[in-house]
Amino acid sequence: MAAARRMVVIGGDAAGMSAASRARRLKSRSELEILAFERGQFTSYSACGIPYWVGGVVDGPDELVARTPETHQGRGIDVRTHTEVVEIDLAGQRVLARDVDPHGKGDEHWHGFDDLVIATGARPRRPDMPGIDAPGVHGVQTLEHGRALLETLESTRVERAVVIGAGYIGVEMAEALIQRGCQVTVLERGEQPMSTLDPDMGRLVRDAMSGLGIDTVTGAEVTEVVTGEDGRVRAVATKVSEYPADLVILGLGVAPETTLAKEAGLPVGPYGGLLTDLAMRVRGYDNIWAGGDCVEVLDLVSGRTRHIPLGTHANKHGQVIGANVGGDYATFPGVVGTAVSKVCDLEIARTGLLEAEAAAVGLKFEAVTIESTSRAGYYPDSRPMTVKMLAEQRTGRLLGTQIVGREGAGKRVDIAAVALTAGMTVEQMTALDLGYAPPFSPVWDPVLVAARKAAGAVKTSPSGA
Amino acid sequence: MAAARRMVVIGGDAAGMSAASRARRLKSRSELEILAFERGQFTSYSACGIPYWVGGVVDGPDELVARTPETHQGRGIDVRTHTEVVEIDLAGQRVLARDVDPHGKGDEHWHGFDDLVIATGARPRRPDMPGIDAPGVHGVQTLEHGRALLETLESTRVERAVVIGAGYIGVEMAEALIQRGCQVTVLERGEQPMSTLDPDMGRLVRDAMSGLGIDTVTGAEVTEVVTGEDGRVRAVATKVSEYPADLVILGLGVAPETTLAKEAGLPVGPYGGLLTDLAMRVRGYDNIWAGGDCVEVLDLVSGRTRHIPLGTHANKHGQVIGANVGGDYATFPGVVGTAVSKVCDLEIARTGLLEAEAAAVGLKFEAVTIESTSRAGYYPDSRPMTVKMLAEQRTGRLLGTQIVGREGAGKRVDIAAVALTAGMTVEQMTALDLGYAPPFSPVWDPVLVAARKAAGAVKTSPSGA
Repeated sequence: MAAARRMVVIGGDAAGMSAASRARRLKSRSELEILAFERGQFTSYSACGIPYWVGGVVDGPDELVARTPETHQGRGIDVRTHTEVVEIDLAGQRVLARDVDPHGKGDEHWHGFDDLVIATGARPRRPDMPGIDAPGVHGVQTLEHGRALLETLESTRVERAVVIGAGYIGVEMAEALIQRGCQVTVLERGEQPMSTLDPDMGRLVRDAMSGLGIDTVTGAEVTEVVTGEDGRVRAVATKVSEYPADLVILGLGVAPETTLAKEAGLPVGPYGGLLTDLAMRVRGYDNIWAGGDCVEVLDLVSGRTRHIPLGTHANKHGQVIGANVGGDYATFPGVVGTAVSKVCDLEIARTGLLEAEAAAVGLKFEAVTIESTSRAGYYPDSRPMTVKMLAEQRTGRLLGTQIVGREGAGKRVDIAAVALTAGMTVEQMTALDLGYAPPFSPVWDPVLVAARKAAGAVKTSPSGA
Repeated sequence: MAAARRMVVIGGDAAGMSAASRARRLKSRSELEILAFERGQFTSYSACGIPYWVGGVVDGPDELVARTPETHQGRGIDVRTHTEVVEIDLAGQRVLARDVDPHGKGDEHWHGFDDLVIATGARPRRPDMPGIDAPGVHGVQTLEHGRALLETLESTRVERAVVIGAGYIGVEMAEALIQRGCQVTVLERGEQPMSTLDPDMGRLVRDAMSGLGIDTVTGAEVTEVVTGEDGRVRAVATKVSEYPADLVILGLGVAPETTLAKEAGLPVGPYGGLLTDLAMRVRGYDNIWAGGDCVEVLDLVSGRTRHIPLGTHANKHGQVIGANVGGDYATFPGVVGTAVSKVCDLEIARTGLLEAEAAAVGLKFEAVTIESTSRAGYYPDSRPMTVKMLAEQRTGRLLGTQIVGREGAGKRVDIAAVALTAGMTVEQMTALDLGYAPPFSPVWDPVLVAARKAAGAVKTSPSGA
């Protein structure tokens, strides 16, 4: 017997399968049929775990899978792996799915939907240059990418690796390759690694990476992946130099995978991500939903949309979509731009806006930087950390926080993330009642020290009270 | 040349000396004379560090001193150590100070003030029972207490130690004495250790303490400290049993030290602590200020005053007082009751209200408990943690959070502390943009998992929407 309605999901990772699972818990099989298409073989996996799998810190790929296709199937979600959706027919309210076949002759079928969830994720940015598709050049966006990379590492002798791009994926992969005994060079076009930090904070990351034996070249404009006679990667060339490489990692970040959606005429934003309303409906459509790495999200601090591909957002989007499709109600109000990462024992975190981002939306601000420690200064393993804080002139409203330090530094960004969400001023933050005991914090938590300095700067700023 | 005004400070620890230092930065010596009296020999020290000093984890006592009397003196604060204020004459706007002399014959002098700061701290609760003053019974409130305890530990053979009271100080001292190789028994009158947690969460602490080799006896009503022929402590007796002891630690918490203030007729609250306004002025007085462990603070969640002796509050109070006395402006809006502690590798934290505390102020609530981990489940050293969350019925407002876990658990309480301060609902918290990466958190932070469950409970509660 056919169900009353059918929900079709494109993409079997976090956003898509969270949506499917939540809707399944709310609606019986006779009320709602759920059909999910996944191009690859895995569902509900942690792409964020790939660098640790490659580095040998965690096992994979099965350990990175939260729920297999069989688990979903057992819960009443009809998952079709190795099946790619190749067309969305909005007028006909149907999608065309094709069996993935290396010879391009896969069967195709149309499937009608009452609700459609687009969760097509993102793809690694591949700069258009000679050699970029050569064997030995790897993205690290899917478990299949991870497996291909590990096969390369295990089947060939990789002494030198070049990572193009020093963002989150770039530095995490640099760590992974160091752990595998490679000599690692990171080529970054910008002034400093981690363009998600202000340059002064990025410099701290660069110094620390240097100390970890990671060769970081900034201002490096990559022009070519040089291949050898066997067609494999041999080096990476920049405008001024050439770096020998047995392996190249694309750490340039990812772009929303919205080819299908754009072909169907769905609205995308400045970063190429789908635009949704607060309930995660594609803008202008009642029954088309989108979430995860293929959407742009509202940045609550700047008031603009951003593309922030992160598993934690994808999971939230999926929960919201599933609740709404299932007849419950939920919204995703937006993000404040929180991110945390590590390179070996260096922890890097940010939330809110950088200086350039704040200026770009017309904000005037004071920026302060302080040094403090993770625990009371006299307590063993008290580690240094640097906290930078931006506060709006006049209002004193917190605009952003960046942290670079060692163990215990990174997750402190959550304090600022919640304060940002609540619209707190730095003066209000100075009174925050945070957990204190010598093994956990100095008597003034580093975030409070930064807030005090920022409050002082706001008071004496030219536009201050 | 006499200064225009004189600020007198009673008590040379965090609140008093922070007030003095902040005022000093704001006013020159000719504008403001600052005179501070301290009964002991140390100033600006971390009493919270004493358990770690006793446990041999940190050095002391000098390492626990942030600023010595000489440092303060060098910055223009006239500190008189070994000097006790024995009377406050409000009508005469002066205090009577006496040199501390073991024979009780110290010189006395009156000192006039324009502003008076009362920062007399707290004293360990000493139950009125036989033997309580015997040699071998130790409080751990001041560095002098710490030194006396260490002298006992080093000069006598301490095999068995009994800690009376299983609150923060009690469990921290139990850890310290285990680290010194003692056999430790903790006697707690209540149903579970850590009465600052709900009993179900306290039970987790008890189980963990047991696993650490700390013998915890609950429902233990201590009736007597039994002394030997030499007058020294020999055992601790409860109503039903007797526990051999070479050393007894008073871990029953502290009471505000407000004898002087009460004699002068200043207002105290239900816990015996001084009552202040938001600028930390003693209520009803323009130029009498009080801060630190001798005051009661406003609990922003319950709307009542509480006595929460914590160095981090004392420092904030001192900053506020110093700013106001120095002609600047600052307030201390109140607390949300955050605390964090550890026993060996067990981390214990809370913020907001317990079930009994919420009920006592007329709140109806839902309480939920979840299990999660400190990092992504597949990441090495991912440790379990339990999070309990209370949310008000109907409004869904967060009322409190308790966390018991291992490494990485405790400081997560800050997320809830900021959310509480901002008056967030648990539904709002489910959308918080917290730092996520596999080494730092599961894709849903444990606090978010708790918030989701709490939001669900509020929705389906009898008084829910």
